[in-house]
Amino acid sequence: MTRKPTPADGFSFGLWTVGWPGQDQFGSASRPDLDPVESVHKLAELGAAHVTFHDDDVVPFGSSEADREKILERFKGALAETGITVEMLTTNTFSHPIFKDGAFTSNDRRVRRYGLRKVIRNVDLAAELGADTFVMWGGREGAEYDSAKDLNAAHDRYAEGIDTVAGYIKEKGYGLRIAIEPKPNEPRGDILLPTVGHALGLIAKLEHGDIVGLNPEVGHEQMAGLNYTTGIAQALWAGKLFHIDLNGQKSIKYDQDLVFGHGDLFSAFATVDLLENGFPGGGPTYTGPKHFDYKPSRTEDKQGVWDSAAANMASYLLLAERATAFRADPEVQEALAYSGVLELAEPTLGEGETLADLLADKSAYEDLDVDAVAERGFGFVRLNQLAMEHAVGARS
Amino acid sequence: MTRKPTPADGFSFGLWTVGWPGQDQFGSASRPDLDPVESVHKLAELGAAHVTFHDDDVVPFGSSEADREKILERFKGALAETGITVEMLTTNTFSHPIFKDGAFTSNDRRVRRYGLRKVIRNVDLAAELGADTFVMWGGREGAEYDSAKDLNAAHDRYAEGIDTVAGYIKEKGYGLRIAIEPKPNEPRGDILLPTVGHALGLIAKLEHGDIVGLNPEVGHEQMAGLNYTTGIAQALWAGKLFHIDLNGQKSIKYDQDLVFGHGDLFSAFATVDLLENGFPGGGPTYTGPKHFDYKPSRTEDKQGVWDSAAANMASYLLLAERATAFRADPEVQEALAYSGVLELAEPTLGEGETLADLLADKSAYEDLDVDAVAERGFGFVRLNQLAMEHAVGARS
Amino acid sequence: MTRKPTPADGFSFGLWTVGWPGQDQFGSASRPDLDPVESVHKLAELGAAHVTFHDDDVVPFGSSEADREKILERFKGALAETGITVEMLTTNTFSHPIFKDGAFTSNDRRVRRYGLRKVIRNVDLAAELGADTFVMWGGREGAEYDSAKDLNAAHDRYAEGIDTVAGYIKEKGYGLRIAIEPKPNEPRGDILLPTVGHALGLIAKLEHGDIVGLNPEVGHEQMAGLNYTTGIAQALWAGKLFHIDLNGQKSIKYDQDLVFGHGDLFSAFATVDLLENGFPGGGPTYTGPKHFDYKPSRTEDKQGVWDSAAANMASYLLLAERATAFRADPEVQEALAYSGVLELAEPTLGEGETLADLLADKSAYEDLDVDAVAERGFGFVRLNQLAMEHAVGARS
Amino acid sequence: MTRKPTPADGFSFGLWTVGWPGQDQFGSASRPDLDPVESVHKLAELGAAHVTFHDDDVVPFGSSEADREKILERFKGALAETGITVEMLTTNTFSHPIFKDGAFTSNDRRVRRYGLRKVIRNVDLAAELGADTFVMWGGREGAEYDSAKDLNAAHDRYAEGIDTVAGYIKEKGYGLRIAIEPKPNEPRGDILLPTVGHALGLIAKLEHGDIVGLNPEVGHEQMAGLNYTTGIAQALWAGKLFHIDLNGQKSIKYDQDLVFGHGDLFSAFATVDLLENGFPGGGPTYTGPKHFDYKPSRTEDKQGVWDSAAANMASYLLLAERATAFRADPEVQEALAYSGVLELAEPTLGEGETLADLLADKSAYEDLDVDAVAERGFGFVRLNQLAMEHAVGARS
Repeated sequence: MTRKPTPADGFSFGLWTVGWPGQDQFGSASRPDLDPVESVHKLAELGAAHVTFHDDDVVPFGSSEADREKILERFKGALAETGITVEMLTTNTFSHPIFKDGAFTSNDRRVRRYGLRKVIRNVDLAAELGADTFVMWGGREGAEYDSAKDLNAAHDRYAEGIDTVAGYIKEKGYGLRIAIEPKPNEPRGDILLPTVGHALGLIAKLEHGDIVGLNPEVGHEQMAGLNYTTGIAQALWAGKLFHIDLNGQKSIKYDQDLVFGHGDLFSAFATVDLLENGFPGGGPTYTGPKHFDYKPSRTEDKQGVWDSAAANMASYLLLAERATAFRADPEVQEALAYSGVLELAEPTLGEGETLADLLADKSAYEDLDVDAVAERGFGFVRLNQLAMEHAVGARS
Repeated sequence: MTRKPTPADGFSFGLWTVGWPGQDQFGSASRPDLDPVESVHKLAELGAAHVTFHDDDVVPFGSSEADREKILERFKGALAETGITVEMLTTNTFSHPIFKDGAFTSNDRRVRRYGLRKVIRNVDLAAELGADTFVMWGGREGAEYDSAKDLNAAHDRYAEGIDTVAGYIKEKGYGLRIAIEPKPNEPRGDILLPTVGHALGLIAKLEHGDIVGLNPEVGHEQMAGLNYTTGIAQALWAGKLFHIDLNGQKSIKYDQDLVFGHGDLFSAFATVDLLENGFPGGGPTYTGPKHFDYKPSRTEDKQGVWDSAAANMASYLLLAERATAFRADPEVQEALAYSGVLELAEPTLGEGETLADLLADKSAYEDLDVDAVAERGFGFVRLNQLAMEHAVGARS
Repeated sequence: MTRKPTPADGFSFGLWTVGWPGQDQFGSASRPDLDPVESVHKLAELGAAHVTFHDDDVVPFGSSEADREKILERFKGALAETGITVEMLTTNTFSHPIFKDGAFTSNDRRVRRYGLRKVIRNVDLAAELGADTFVMWGGREGAEYDSAKDLNAAHDRYAEGIDTVAGYIKEKGYGLRIAIEPKPNEPRGDILLPTVGHALGLIAKLEHGDIVGLNPEVGHEQMAGLNYTTGIAQALWAGKLFHIDLNGQKSIKYDQDLVFGHGDLFSAFATVDLLENGFPGGGPTYTGPKHFDYKPSRTEDKQGVWDSAAANMASYLLLAERATAFRADPEVQEALAYSGVLELAEPTLGEGETLADLLADKSAYEDLDVDAVAERGFGFVRLNQLAMEHAVGARS
Repeated sequence: MTRKPTPADGFSFGLWTVGWPGQDQFGSASRPDLDPVESVHKLAELGAAHVTFHDDDVVPFGSSEADREKILERFKGALAETGITVEMLTTNTFSHPIFKDGAFTSNDRRVRRYGLRKVIRNVDLAAELGADTFVMWGGREGAEYDSAKDLNAAHDRYAEGIDTVAGYIKEKGYGLRIAIEPKPNEPRGDILLPTVGHALGLIAKLEHGDIVGLNPEVGHEQMAGLNYTTGIAQALWAGKLFHIDLNGQKSIKYDQDLVFGHGDLFSAFATVDLLENGFPGGGPTYTGPKHFDYKPSRTEDKQGVWDSAAANMASYLLLAERATAFRADPEVQEALAYSGVLELAEPTLGEGETLADLLADKSAYEDLDVDAVAERGFGFVRLNQLAMEHAVGARS
């Protein structure tokens, strides 16, 4: 049976997840709106530690300053009562039609300026609420048509926008880091910074890139057919895995936002294994919150919403147990060694060896029995079968 | 009718393209092997300027040093006779079973050392032949199974390998730049550096990243559902578009390597428009060779091979004519302006404006008539229809 | 330049296409609602011949009987004034949350009964308006989860629903045929009858399958990576291409509903070629209306809506001209013959030849020079290059 | 731990699976050829019940009649010694270049006649060996280019070919049924009969369709982003699930042929649940062999080959245990009822009820409280979480 989560597990939920009323591209809402205060209480009850939100999730777009204050005070009350903290904040720059061509990269400069202002305002709130991470998902930064966007200018503007916000964070001395959330498409035909890699590429060109990293989402990478675990591994390797969005997706299609573990289950096992146990040979680790960005299916009522929230945490905890047993299994350790997985940490050039040394080493090339080396079986299928059997609890 | 290509057009062909005998995953060769010398002559006749090759395309794997010399002498003779030059060289680190788990990132250190030697040897040849670019496609660097690879170590080894080669190039003073060719999968389940973005991300962490850039292939990006033109645009923006591989692909499936223009035709138009005419608002441009990396379909005989080679160049030239007319059309210029495409080059913060100034500008936020701004129609569909009509030659 | 469409061209538009206000999964409407009467007038002006609609597109869900009558009277007035006819009607069984688990296959029998009533009511309207085709898109018939649906019962219920409607049509003597519109996913994780093929498979099991056929949509087939032209070809071959939905899609992703010709342009050329010119060797042809099911991008204002409507027709007419020139080109005719395309109509067994005769024909097997036959080059790349050059107007 | 398979489990292997030497599109063989006789012995040892093969897997293409006899005698000896039976036979009409444009639908009539002869010859062998099923995978029936194929003629020829073979089977009184194996693409750009549905559509038009059904392969359906379990469910519903090909695939990409359970694990659970336990509400069941069509990864040596063969069976047996526990869990039964899964078997029209009755039933439409019905929560997420927890062995 599944262990009940506690705040020590570090689970976090976007308020827009449980709060999604079920309106989609082809149909209207199937559930009433949820009061964010109720969500905070209910998530605390279920064992979550944190919530996150877009500005507009808590304070409706267009609220007066006075209303905003009142709403936020009440919301902070719920936080205080429950012990829930806000670990991340993000800005809605995609729902209102003013952002229909993007925010930081809209062809309309008035929109770019407005978007920047909306983001900066929210940075102040993030700092005030003690968040660690400020996520930027540029869901409308992109185009349906190749002719519609000057792509050089678009990358310039994207970089300008992020650098401006990052510079502000530094100037203010806020304890915030920015995490870019990539997505390949939907709602735009092609979205800028479509994958973990493209965001890493942009960050490398920023002035304030040191406080800018990634918030990769399971489903977003899988919508491009990419391996999520490999993606966050490269982000970790680059020192840039600042936050994660866990959910489920089945193959390449529209953004499904299923419960974590309800998409590619075996891939979810590998993700949890990396998050909990690190790389086999050591290296950087992820220690941030386990944040769920999913949608309770439109077929569910309120009970179904809370069941689905609980399901995310239950899936994670179960897979974490499976992953721990996987790593602890002596047969797995033997198989990892057999497959050379632990050998890869050894540099190709030996300690103190220069390339000139390698070029002079006939045993490495001229005298190598190429066919004999080629015959080595790596035993990857057996190792993977061990992983699968652990994933389904058959060896614990 | 199509203009005949000349060397001034800068077209380049991999010898492995026309030389592919048609053996695939499900069937044996349908054509005899081609003599590289014949290919050089024939490509010259057809109007190409350059050829490129993997070491093993010209010198069979395992040849003796003496045979290698003889073969290369004869090959250089063909170059001299035809005026064809070798603009790029690349290494086959994927066909022989010794590379079945990769070269730079094989779990077997003997293979990593052997692979590095094979590459370095080919770098010397590239320099000798006067190539500008040294392409690295790590087709076997990856895994089918999440358990099979220490992904932190894998990125370490990949970086070590590329940096070692780049350091060698600098030390020798060769006029070469390295261009990484990303691919998401096939022949491995997941390949490391799956997209333009991931390669940019790795390059940013290299010691010698200044001479390392990208060789993006049309089909490889499209196999991840990504927009090729957007991909090379980001590479250009980052100063990293060192080389290109043009071909055709239809949707997300196995690597098709069709003739350029025989895949996503409208996307090919946009690619040629960018390569020939640059970004609408100016910025970095690509001036390198137009390199085709395609396969003549297995249904074709030798005549079909040369017809397909010619088809690549004809497609490019046709689309280049269409793109030139597109940019020159005053209605297009008007439509670009209407859509705000030319407005995006203007920074979001004005010249000399600070973020503090923007924060104080009530017209940007507090007083902005958000709904009025949101009503602006961008006219992207009309602009795209103009592009489509130019692509099909309906307005020239 | 593009020829202006006339009613003789048989173009048809769903009222929900131009009427889409731009609300999507991630954002609210960017345009005000359109009055269907205005749409009829405007589409007539642009040269369309027909409109089509879901019941709720014209009569808001939940309208009283009296309001319904009034609304329909006014609507018929617009038809009479413009000469626009209603060639197809369809039912909205996907927007209201009552249909969140489908209509004919909802797990809730009350919903199935309600859905059937809603459809039957609309069949009467279709007959009254003189429509030829009654489209059924079961957008919510499906599931996100394998456990959520008894798939045998689901196919039973789907067949029951369609047969009940078809039986009613026959009983009433209506001049209507049903056309099923397949779609692989979105808004459900997996939709029943995901492709042209699956619908053909279901129709074969129906009692009244003789008046049930297909309404394949370009984007829906391409969302499964399938070739649209091949799909409608199989439907034509099976005598089941009752209607078509033309639009544009780029690769495998969310349902884009772009303007026809703005997705896979070369594939659109092939589709128009088949619709206008038939199979190269003759056979069944499509003579119905050219129906567009697209969405004007959310970035567009009202002018953009009408520009996009016009663009669909302009694209079709342009590609039809290109396809006519393609077929008329003697070089193309020669290339088709060279490639054996015209040879495929010849049966494998000769006239009067039995299998026993073939088995006794040593020239067919025992004495066949297999390698010599295998050497034949099919010239497909050259033929395709001719098609591409015609598509871009380079040979006309 | 995993139960060891026995012949009673009905596991079956293609000889081409374990026998694949590792040659792929980008590299040469990494393992020596396997002797089919050795494979039969080894598979028997591992607990398999059956083997299957293409003609050329056992008797090399082009063997003399005398050699063929000798080879087959020796092969039958291995069968006799081990008790392994041949439950299915299939024909290689894709490897030799003569089939480069297909067999039954090649544009070259000589090839069509030759292909038909090759198939018929193999039907005789299938009957002689006592096989039940004759699989037809038309891997080369298709095209890369829309212009390359008369699609009406192609479907005519495909039907002619299958009907000719089916007629021969009937005439000879063989106890064989034909099973078509669909695939969307690879090695052709688009393959005819790309999915389960398209094959069902073709079968419905055959003269001898009664003995023609389906052999759906997990990976092939998933290459089109389709749900495999839903696909075989429709085939079962249509009475056409004659055989199955189990393996693993990760998302939409090249044909991976992974071990069963090493692809989409949760989907594999649903497949096994259907195969072992049938539909929740009863209906047709699959009772044939569990046939694996996979490839031992190219990284594996001979030990890895046999480990991978064993892994397929172990995965199936494990998932079967999990599925049995899933169905037996009272909480699952309750959840199935709550979700209405068991309600779907009830016809929409009551027993004896006519459509006229339903039209007269005001409670079904006029008086239905639509909003109240719409509020019903289906509890699908909770049910799916129960399925997931059973899949990972957390509730047994």
